[in-house]
Amino acid sequence: VSEPLPGGPGLSEEEIIRLAGALAAGAAGAGPSAGLKLGIGDDAAVLDLAQGEYVVTTDLMVEGVHFDLALMAPADVGWRAMAANLSDLAAMGALPRWGFLSLGLKPPAREDLVRGLLGGMLELGSTHGLALAGGDTVRAPVGLVNLCLIGAMAGVTPVTRAGARAGQAVCVTGWLGQAAGGLAWLQAGGDAKDPLAAPLVAAHRRPTPRLAAGRALAVSGLVTAMMDLSDGVASDLARLALASGEAAGAPLGAVVAAEAVPVSEAAGEAAQRLGADALAWALTGGEDFELLFTCRPADAPALARAVQAAEPGLAVTVLGEITAEPGLWLAHADGRRAEMSFQGYDHFGYDHFR
Amino acid sequence: VSEPLPGGPGLSEEEIIRLAGALAAGAAGAGPSAGLKLGIGDDAAVLDLAQGEYVVTTDLMVEGVHFDLALMAPADVGWRAMAANLSDLAAMGALPRWGFLSLGLKPPAREDLVRGLLGGMLELGSTHGLALAGGDTVRAPVGLVNLCLIGAMAGVTPVTRAGARAGQAVCVTGWLGQAAGGLAWLQAGGDAKDPLAAPLVAAHRRPTPRLAAGRALAVSGLVTAMMDLSDGVASDLARLALASGEAAGAPLGAVVAAEAVPVSEAAGEAAQRLGADALAWALTGGEDFELLFTCRPADAPALARAVQAAEPGLAVTVLGEITAEPGLWLAHADGRRAEMSFQGYDHFGYDHFR
Repeated sequence: VSEPLPGGPGLSEEEIIRLAGALAAGAAGAGPSAGLKLGIGDDAAVLDLAQGEYVVTTDLMVEGVHFDLALMAPADVGWRAMAANLSDLAAMGALPRWGFLSLGLKPPAREDLVRGLLGGMLELGSTHGLALAGGDTVRAPVGLVNLCLIGAMAGVTPVTRAGARAGQAVCVTGWLGQAAGGLAWLQAGGDAKDPLAAPLVAAHRRPTPRLAAGRALAVSGLVTAMMDLSDGVASDLARLALASGEAAGAPLGAVVAAEAVPVSEAAGEAAQRLGADALAWALTGGEDFELLFTCRPADAPALARAVQAAEPGLAVTVLGEITAEPGLWLAHADGRRAEMSFQGYDHFGYDHFR
Repeated sequence: VSEPLPGGPGLSEEEIIRLAGALAAGAAGAGPSAGLKLGIGDDAAVLDLAQGEYVVTTDLMVEGVHFDLALMAPADVGWRAMAANLSDLAAMGALPRWGFLSLGLKPPAREDLVRGLLGGMLELGSTHGLALAGGDTVRAPVGLVNLCLIGAMAGVTPVTRAGARAGQAVCVTGWLGQAAGGLAWLQAGGDAKDPLAAPLVAAHRRPTPRLAAGRALAVSGLVTAMMDLSDGVASDLARLALASGEAAGAPLGAVVAAEAVPVSEAAGEAAQRLGADALAWALTGGEDFELLFTCRPADAPALARAVQAAEPGLAVTVLGEITAEPGLWLAHADGRRAEMSFQGYDHFGYDHFR
């Protein structure tokens, strides 16, 4: 049936499961894991749940498509996979609870790689109260990280993408284009420690999921639609308008004011040095994992204060408006307009690395 | 940032998500999806749950490692991925409820491939009351299928691997080695429609998760430990003994009676034609997805009747005993004994296809 694999000894499947169990148990000590009756090691995990609403999200990251081990340490890959999934929970306003990891590894399964990956993942997860409760480990031709996370709404109504209406304000948290700038910087061979680029590189390698902000926005009851920015505001806002239009029974669009897009000074300078366009990073560069949301224009200041209270230093910017006219437009102060629907990252239309 | 991919037009990410949503909605019409408040298309699915115990399992299948599209149709790959995950729910005694699919596809994403894969997966899932509630779609260098399933215990206590004790009977449902025989037959270029091999090929391509049997066994309250056979009885029984020994605080082992191992006539004949060993298929061939469980010897007949009532035609065989002596042994009627711990499929120790 089978022959030993070339490549020397690595961890066996059993050893990886045991290591994951030990690291998860250690990390869970730092945070709550109430409700988890049986964790890693059996056919399935057992959760003892209170009545209520829960949200579930899953994300698959593939080596060479979503991450490059030449540009990121294994711990960064683990962190980033967890961040991408936590960001989906943040966008619903949920509290992170339990995670399930499927890991694909190219043999031999090096212990330092597995430890790094799990370490980065659990470092971020446990900070936000998430316990790793189960998973699967398999051999694969490239590194694969799939996480499926369960969050609890704990009495708060989840915020979908579908509640925006014409005339409402389009808002985002934080800076846009930071992660795309960091990736471009690294791909151009830039020094990760350069003070100018450091925040951009950190946004690429160790993004911050906006869990406290997302929860505060959901609790407010004033947010009409919300999603996280994983493929760039051009694509993601088009999705939000599309989903909201379908729910409303009449198509919706959006207009973004170019001058309002929050681009950091660091991103602007880095783009200049690289001969790139920071606004393009902000609009079409994915994986900032900031929150995109809509509300009545009059509610925007109160929501900005709620976000500030939840995550001190995190700004909210009103960058556009939902329109009854379908399509997604970028409007410049001088009156120029350009259509920009779905200019972000489509996994099948574009190639991220080449 | 990006250039169009070579390979001609395939489905876009949006189109795949829409297709999955439409197929899932169609399939859900056939089965219950109570509790699913928001399905495919948002940042996360929303479940409205009653208080109680739930189980969660996840499994990753990789093209070239777990399946070969030269030997299986896309619908078979989807079916098999669903079967492997449902089998984990069966082994806890749970009722299938909601599934989350991560799909990795090599561009171009061909519509017939996506339709076939989702069709086979939903055909089996909806039969057992499972609704596809969310997922993720990405580009990948090989086909990837990850499922994360949630099952409900609905008042029944889940059965773990850890409750077996010395002197208890080791039982299995159905025939062992069928799936390994079917794979060997196909790999040797055998005709899939040969009447001799047809049940073996079906066991490989379209395995039957033992959900009704697993539920009946859990409901009985007489099963002390249970798991599904995904890596062969040699590895899986060793895992059950190990987990039970750890829980008991004293190591446990098991002995399997070679002559009691349920090998079908078809498997025996096919093995003879291929110059292979049907007993080796049964012991070390993985992915039969039958149930392995332990009980007091006196309870075995009642449990066999409960399984018959739940799945008519499905036999239960007592093939061994849990021992206070650690290690896993194969005992022949003539008194020969051979140690066989962990002779099954380790994802990092052996190569399945080459």
